[in-house]
Amino acid sequence: MQRLVALISDFGTSDPYAGQMEAAVLAHAPDARVVSITHGISPQDIALGAVVVAASLERLPPGAILVAVVDPGVGGRRRGLIVRAASRWLVGPDNGLLMGASAIEGMWHLDRPNYWNPDPHPTFHGRDVFAPVAGHLASYVRPDAMASPIDDALPAPDTIAQTLDGMVEGRIVHVDHFGNLITNIPRAAVRAVTHGVVELGSARIDGVQPTYGSGTEPVAVVSSLGLLEVAVPGGSAQSTLGAKRGDSVRLRPA
Amino acid sequence: MQRLVALISDFGTSDPYAGQMEAAVLAHAPDARVVSITHGISPQDIALGAVVVAASLERLPPGAILVAVVDPGVGGRRRGLIVRAASRWLVGPDNGLLMGASAIEGMWHLDRPNYWNPDPHPTFHGRDVFAPVAGHLASYVRPDAMASPIDDALPAPDTIAQTLDGMVEGRIVHVDHFGNLITNIPRAAVRAVTHGVVELGSARIDGVQPTYGSGTEPVAVVSSLGLLEVAVPGGSAQSTLGAKRGDSVRLRPA
Amino acid sequence: MQRLVALISDFGTSDPYAGQMEAAVLAHAPDARVVSITHGISPQDIALGAVVVAASLERLPPGAILVAVVDPGVGGRRRGLIVRAASRWLVGPDNGLLMGASAIEGMWHLDRPNYWNPDPHPTFHGRDVFAPVAGHLASYVRPDAMASPIDDALPAPDTIAQTLDGMVEGRIVHVDHFGNLITNIPRAAVRAVTHGVVELGSARIDGVQPTYGSGTEPVAVVSSLGLLEVAVPGGSAQSTLGAKRGDSVRLRPA
Repeated sequence: MQRLVALISDFGTSDPYAGQMEAAVLAHAPDARVVSITHGISPQDIALGAVVVAASLERLPPGAILVAVVDPGVGGRRRGLIVRAASRWLVGPDNGLLMGASAIEGMWHLDRPNYWNPDPHPTFHGRDVFAPVAGHLASYVRPDAMASPIDDALPAPDTIAQTLDGMVEGRIVHVDHFGNLITNIPRAAVRAVTHGVVELGSARIDGVQPTYGSGTEPVAVVSSLGLLEVAVPGGSAQSTLGAKRGDSVRLRPA
Repeated sequence: MQRLVALISDFGTSDPYAGQMEAAVLAHAPDARVVSITHGISPQDIALGAVVVAASLERLPPGAILVAVVDPGVGGRRRGLIVRAASRWLVGPDNGLLMGASAIEGMWHLDRPNYWNPDPHPTFHGRDVFAPVAGHLASYVRPDAMASPIDDALPAPDTIAQTLDGMVEGRIVHVDHFGNLITNIPRAAVRAVTHGVVELGSARIDGVQPTYGSGTEPVAVVSSLGLLEVAVPGGSAQSTLGAKRGDSVRLRPA
Repeated sequence: MQRLVALISDFGTSDPYAGQMEAAVLAHAPDARVVSITHGISPQDIALGAVVVAASLERLPPGAILVAVVDPGVGGRRRGLIVRAASRWLVGPDNGLLMGASAIEGMWHLDRPNYWNPDPHPTFHGRDVFAPVAGHLASYVRPDAMASPIDDALPAPDTIAQTLDGMVEGRIVHVDHFGNLITNIPRAAVRAVTHGVVELGSARIDGVQPTYGSGTEPVAVVSSLGLLEVAVPGGSAQSTLGAKRGDSVRLRPA
């Protein structure tokens, strides 16, 4: 039986990096199914990557393998990891990127180069280390054969907004293709604030809606990534509100 | 035997939406082959989407499944559909997007949530409703099990230019990656105008050519989407002519 | 057994061209695995395409098929080719794009339209000629059935910088998604210059490093494409140095 191997990176799609990584998985696991979840994480943005990794992992079927590469330390002393979480597998750098996942069941440090491509290129471990290891996992090589157990991986960046005195101060962490503004305010915080008001610049949005609806005013919803999102139905909240990544967003009781 | 599942959307490729939809198909149909035809439909542009859906469907092998998502009404009252056309399957919203297809043989309304992901996210039916249904179709679940027959789907937007008194007034509906200008004037209209002249702003192009050729002047051809296209060989018609989406284009006899 | 079919083109990802080509491969080889290495070659840039084709081919497993399409002459008199190199297969136009590959073992001219899609669209041989031929190759149709042997394909553009008097004058041929500056100076030239100094505009970089490191100053490395690259760790060399495609780069002894 083939296994599903999913990819997340900050490689973009205009260069051959993502495709070479995908081909490297298939070279080691000819029967795997490979899916690129996204290569559009902002360059070097480990925090956003960790959120997308965690949100995407739970959507994959049990046994799936997710390779994640946002890796400014490539070629240096940072370690490579296999992580088992919620009956799925993660492969990537030890820089916090994988550690937003919940239900972590085991961690291993990649220390057996005979499971990598020969002469791994020092700036491209995605292709030459992580993809081959993922391919071997998809071919049912056990992690113990390729790596040594550890218990001290670097934690995920602490970027999720915290609730304080019933109010949440967050910020825009991503502007998506539709101009929707994705914040770092999690679903749990939204649920905790009854009749919430969202403030973003001079805009004030009453209530968090279940879906976009059909008006032309900005609405607040919980995005499919599990984070508070501000959108303009059929339009772009980015343009309408003149908002950008990093802008402050507040959620407070009405 | 595996089946081919093709995807078309306005999700772009910088966010995880397209990849999560692809993974959701494979979660329900591990042996399917999934191909992203494009996720570059202009946001919310149902009319352009309908043209690309129709043009792409006829290129897929019989039995293939095409999931199309341009869905400003997601989470509202618009229905989800399965459409059978020319021995192929379409899955997507009931907003006209699927209805540019010719040779429609049957239509069904998605009304059985037990074939969807549990708790479908109200802003992401592509991942949580349409992808699972496509996966089940690829696994040979019959449409009657997942949906109820209907005969009243919303028609495709009426955007194809019409011929009037031997002349066609159209417009640019898409500027492609090469700067080629794709119009809404269909192949049939091009064939009906002998020795046609194409007018676009102050440019006048004599004749519609079989292919780009090697000159440096703008040429008119029929694009691979079946629509009149203005191109500059080895260059960009968009820059050369200063043209943009929405601009008027006329095809008339010489 | 399925075979791996990899794709490289200048089609971009905002139009249906790349996806329709991928679907066309699968229509003729339902069991193949198809990987898009990149569709981000600069439009019409055969020289850059030839470098990426050569660098990507050697990463594919033996028996793999690489379809490459940067094809300004589509629909004209240029021929279509199958090339066998290093136990792998290349399919694409006869314009030099495929000929950067080393270890070429055979070349064939595509002259049997019964192996193409019926009525190939004159502006889209990627979908209607090269993809079906690749699909047939993946299904173990022999090249002699689809094409006639030749020995006179057009050579790859002569764009790799040459070493002269121990010094190399090159230029930036690609700015990648991270703002890394990829030059046309090959690994062999880097190795030949001991203690090299890289000059780019007013910047002077001492030595070519094995990897990016963690400073904030520009560094020179050999990119994963096998070409000299100038990067800023964790940043963008393009912004930091105000550099652009085409800019001159010099490598000389210290």
